Order: sequence, then C-alpha cells, then structure tokens
Amino acid sequence: MKKISILGAGLVGGPMAMDLHNDKQFEVAVYDLNRESLKGLKAKGVSCYEADLADTATLLKCIQGADIVLSAVPGFMGFSTLRQVIEAKKDVIDIAFFPENLFDLDELAKKHGVTAISDIGVAPGMSNILSAHADSMLDKTDNIRIYVGGLPKTRSWPWEYKAVFSPIDVIEEYTRPARFVENGKLITKPALTDPELLDFEKVGTLEAFNSDGLRSLIHTIDCPNMIEKTLRYPGHIEKIRVLKDSGFFGEDEVMINGHKIRPIDFTTRILFPKWKLQEGEQDITIMKVIVEGSKDGKKAGFEYELYDEYEPVSQVHSMARTTGYTATMAVRMLAEGLYQRKGISAPEFVGKDRKCVDFILQGLKERGIKYREKILS
Amino acid sequence: MKKISILGAGLVGGPMAMDLHNDKQFEVAVYDLNRESLKGLKAKGVSCYEADLADTATLLKCIQGADIVLSAVPGFMGFSTLRQVIEAKKDVIDIAFFPENLFDLDELAKKHGVTAISDIGVAPGMSNILSAHADSMLDKTDNIRIYVGGLPKTRSWPWEYKAVFSPIDVIEEYTRPARFVENGKLITKPALTDPELLDFEKVGTLEAFNSDGLRSLIHTIDCPNMIEKTLRYPGHIEKIRVLKDSGFFGEDEVMINGHKIRPIDFTTRILFPKWKLQEGEQDITIMKVIVEGSKDGKKAGFEYELYDEYEPVSQVHSMARTTGYTATMAVRMLAEGLYQRKGISAPEFVGKDRKCVDFILQGLKERGIKYREKILS
Repeated sequence: MKKISILGAGLVGGPMAMDLHNDKQFEVAVYDLNRESLKGLKAKGVSCYEADLADTATLLKCIQGADIVLSAVPGFMGFSTLRQVIEAKKDVIDIAFFPENLFDLDELAKKHGVTAISDIGVAPGMSNILSAHADSMLDKTDNIRIYVGGLPKTRSWPWEYKAVFSPIDVIEEYTRPARFVENGKLITKPALTDPELLDFEKVGTLEAFNSDGLRSLIHTIDCPNMIEKTLRYPGHIEKIRVLKDSGFFGEDEVMINGHKIRPIDFTTRILFPKWKLQEGEQDITIMKVIVEGSKDGKKAGFEYELYDEYEPVSQVHSMARTTGYTATMAVRMLAEGLYQRKGISAPEFVGKDRKCVDFILQGLKERGIKYREKILS
Repeated sequence: MKKISILGAGLVGGPMAMDLHNDKQFEVAVYDLNRESLKGLKAKGVSCYEADLADTATLLKCIQGADIVLSAVPGFMGFSTLRQVIEAKKDVIDIAFFPENLFDLDELAKKHGVTAISDIGVAPGMSNILSAHADSMLDKTDNIRIYVGGLPKTRSWPWEYKAVFSPIDVIEEYTRPARFVENGKLITKPALTDPELLDFEKVGTLEAFNSDGLRSLIHTIDCPNMIEKTLRYPGHIEKIRVLKDSGFFGEDEVMINGHKIRPIDFTTRILFPKWKLQEGEQDITIMKVIVEGSKDGKKAGFEYELYDEYEPVSQVHSMARTTGYTATMAVRMLAEGLYQRKGISAPEFVGKDRKCVDFILQGLKERGIKYREKILS
C-alpha cells in the first residue's frame, strides 16, 4: 500500500484526496493550514492534519513517510515547497502552478534521483499532454492551437463569468501579454486581442482571445505555430477591454479623496464578489486542442475536445475534476512505475509516451471526463 | 443702451458674453472668480472683472448697475445667486441649472416685481419651449417625447462620448431615477432603461434611454404621456450599465488597502479624464421633440429636430451655442419688452407665447441653430 501525502486541501485538493482515498492501493494523508478546508474530508474518513506547510520542519514531517507527494499548495509557495520535497528525495506530482520556471529545479531533482511532474492539471496539463501526444504521432507538426475555458453553466449578465480559480489570476490572464510561436518565432501580443468565435456542442458559441498559456510548450515542442486562447461567453471580452482601456486595471496609484489607490486594487475589490463561484453553482470546462502537420508526406492531424461539467452527486466543480483527476492519475502512473524519468517533467514529457497517455485518458474516462479525439486529414 | 451683467464666464458664459457684446444695443460686463476664464474675453474687448460671486456684497456690486442679469454660475450656487438677484429687484435670465425647485422663488420674484426665467438652455430650455408651443397649437395633447444628446463628432471606442457639461452631472443622468408621465400618472423608472434605437440625419443611428429630464414640464403641461430620453451612440448605455450593475457607481464606502473609498469617487476619477472634451474637439447636439394630439377633432402634431455642431471659426462648442444663444435670445426678449410676466418662469411659459417663440427661433437661426419643424397628421 503506497503512502500519499497531499499538501493543500482547497478547491482542487479536496476532490483529489477523495479520489485517492477511495482507491484501495493508497493510504492518504492530507495537510492544510485551514481547519475548515479539512473538515469535510475528515467527516468522510480521510486522515487529515492541520499543518503550516510554509514551515520547513513541519513540511518535512508531513512528507517523511510518503512514497509520493501531491502538492496543491497556493502558487506563491509552490516553488519553495517543490524544492523542499525534491530535497527530501520524494517523487512528486505538483499542481501549485507557481510563476517561477519549473526547470530551475531540474538539476536538483536529477541529483536526488527524484521524478517530479509539474503543471499537470487540465491547462496547463492535458493541453500539453495531448499536444505532445499528437506531435509524436506526426512526422512534422505545423500548427498547435489550444482553446480552453472554465465557465459558469448559467450565464448571468453582465459578466457571464465566475472565477473557477483565484480571480487575481484571471485578471493576470486579461493583462499579461500573451506569448505565441508564429512562423518559428516567439511573438508577443497584448492579452484579450484577436477575438474569435467558435461553436461548441452543448455550449453554443464562445469567444476566444489571446492569453499567455503556452508556458513550457514554447520551448519543448518543435512546432513553428503555437497559440493558446482563453474561452469566454461572447461579449465578456469587450466588457473587460472597456475596463482595461479606461484605466480600471492600472497599477500606478491615483489620488482618491487624499488616499493613494491602485486602480487594479479597487476594480478587483468591486468585481471579485460578483465573480465568486458559489457553493453548488455549476461550472463547465471546455477545451479544444488542434494539432496539424503531416505524416508519410500527407496532411494529417488530431483534434481533442473536452466538455465537462459540475458533478452534482459528489458536488465537485468541473475545474476541480478536470484539474485534480489529471493529477491523481499522474500519481497512479508513478505508483505503477509507468513513468520513471528523473528530473522535472513538464506534462508534455508524459505526452510523448503513448502508454502513459492512454493510462491517464482511461482513468479520466472512468471519472466521466472524456476527451473526444478526431483524426484530421 | 441696456446694461447686462453676466455672472460666470465658463464654457457657456464665454460665448454668451461674446454674443451680447457684439450686439450694439448692450453694454456687457462679465464677472468670474477665475482670471483664466476671463482672459480670452478681455482680449476681445469685453469688460471683465474678477469677482467672488459667492460673496453677497460682491455679487450685489456686480449687478447693481445692470438692467438685466444673466446668471451662468455653477449649479451648486445657482439657487442662492438667483435669490439675491431677485432681492436686488433685477430681471434675470438664469441657466445655472440648480437642483432646487425654481418655483420656491416665485413668490419672492412676484413680490419684487421681477421677471426671472430659469433653465432656458437647450434641454431644459428649448425642449420646454417647443413642447409648450406645440401644446398651445393643439386642442388636446396626448403625447410628448423629447430626445436629446450632446456628443463628440468623432466616435472613439470604448465610450464614444465626451462630457459637454460637468461629468458628475452626466453620472447623475445615469443613476437618478427618471420621472415620466404615463397615462396621466407620474411614474418612475431606473435611469438607463428602455434603450431605443433612432435614426438621425447626418448622425446615423443613436440609442436613447430613460433619464430624468422633464423637470418642470411634469407639472406645467397638461399631457397624459410625457417622456424624456437621453441620446448616445449605440453601445454606450450597455457599457455604463455594466459598470452600474457591477457596483462601480456605488455610494457606500468600501475598504481598499485600509482606506475607505466610495466606488463612485474612484470610478469618476478614472473615467472623467477619458470623457474630457478637449479644446477644439468638435461636438454635436441632437434633439427631437415630438408632440402628438388632436386639433378640430383630427389627429395632429408637431415634430422639431435640431442638429447643431461645433463652430470652427469662433471655436464655440455646440453645447455652448445651443444652450447659451437660447439664453442670450431670452435676454433680448426681456430687453425688448416682449416677455413681461412677473415671477419665476419656466421656459414653457415663454413657449405659450407665439411671438416669443418666433423671436427666439429667429435669433437662433441667425446664429446657425436651426430647429426643423415637421407637421404631423
């Protein structure tokens, strides 16, 4: 029986804990600073411990008996947590989505003989895995396009949007310049640009815009054209652009009645309560990955499409399902010795191994998360 | 030669001063606290004086020699200024557009034998005059609709709007509930409601929304259906409603980084620089007044339409032209003894007198401001 230490019992951490707890091959222990977050899991029989994971001695105690560590700590402490887990020589699946460069820990992980996979959620995560998988089946890849969005099932004017993760990260998506690959060159465009309408089954028409989501793919896949776009219900982008263009996202302080205030701080204070996904509020996750190229001298390609929604019986949000169960399948993949590469792996490294891809897709399918493959020609 | 004291040399005060100064029958003196505002007028030979009109003794000195006073002070000091002018027994044309009820000064004006006409700009002003004029030509009036807007000639995304008067009064229009008369009853609807698209010559399609602009007309005209709507380029209203609905116009303080800030104060701080009509930037004024009823047992009615634009030679904004020249024609109307009613007059009182209406319309026409009349049947 393999021992799994789960660090963080938040929106995604909780459902991951339940998924692994219900798997007879694992003995699960969950650690979180927040007693409230642990309450529900404890009631369901999961071993839970209050722990300040920012404290090194505490963190080491939480992981010392583990065979595999699953890190779902907040992004700001993700990098240092991962570093310490690697130093403790523990294999680790990491979905902290920290801003630092994950490969900065590659040498350390190799030195300690550790297998660490980062960013293995839905996007980043499955988007990388499927891109790499398709790429590996083609002789030459010309074009990768990733469209992804987490949305509320019910559209309420004006925003028709609820934040399925930290809303400040949503604003990041709306402001940080987007990096793509175009004709083999890295280019940068402002966020929110190039709106494009796409039709999706069950959802209808959505609007996609440039966002900075390719991350490691830019450097790890040899493809001259790569782009990631975020999906929203049509109209949302223009409203955000109105705010942005008018200065509501400004980061320089302005004087308001004698106080210095950054517009972004004010705007988020007003918007975030409106964007809060309420308990029990249904969300959906939509993703489309299109990979085009050639095989045996002919045009060829693959398209993957995901539609997933809130699971009403277990009351797990779709964003937690699609992110968390990818990570728990990665835990199983390590546990079964299917993936053994030492060092830091981005998810696309996993995507190059057909057995691993099939293993993860099969596990997701059993959990109701279905990636529909279409062969392009 | 009649002596005219003009109180206030702002956006509208300046062009009014020039208009009366160029008229041989008047001796004009202009008073303002702000030396900058007076500079341009002085250079053109107008008698200008720096004066703190909020100070009673100063105000009395400024008006003591006047035959007619023209008040264009800021709204917040409009009521008390008018009261003091009346107490000084001076006939007065007033376009301070103060929030208080003008008829509260009616008794005082009658007691002092003063003729005072308030709110005699474009809207309120010409909208009231034309409504009353049409009403007086019908046996029975069933329906009055007024559409009015001041807009920049050049449409710049996202707001396609520039404030041709105090921007805080624009926000008032967007937030204060709108009062109408419907089936003989006074009703109230939220501002920005009932958007309606209308086509105008030279301008194209505009969008009208409910705003609180009928003011005195509600009580002075016997008509069971009266409405005023504000005109904007299509799309502006929805953007404003997005802000309003999201709480950006909130008046209750919220905590931002330890400071208490009213959302409305923040929002106006961000928006107003974007809405500032720049010097030399061309504006247009559009108004349509539709009055329907019956005459001699048959359906009858009148429609008035105004399109006016920035005057590039004199560099006078259209809003200043259409507002200010209505007021200066009212000054001439008093000077010539055409209108002698004692007490406070709303502009619709003037509108009941055909001679006065013709006099004002003729004067406006000479200044290039043309109200096109259409007879409905």
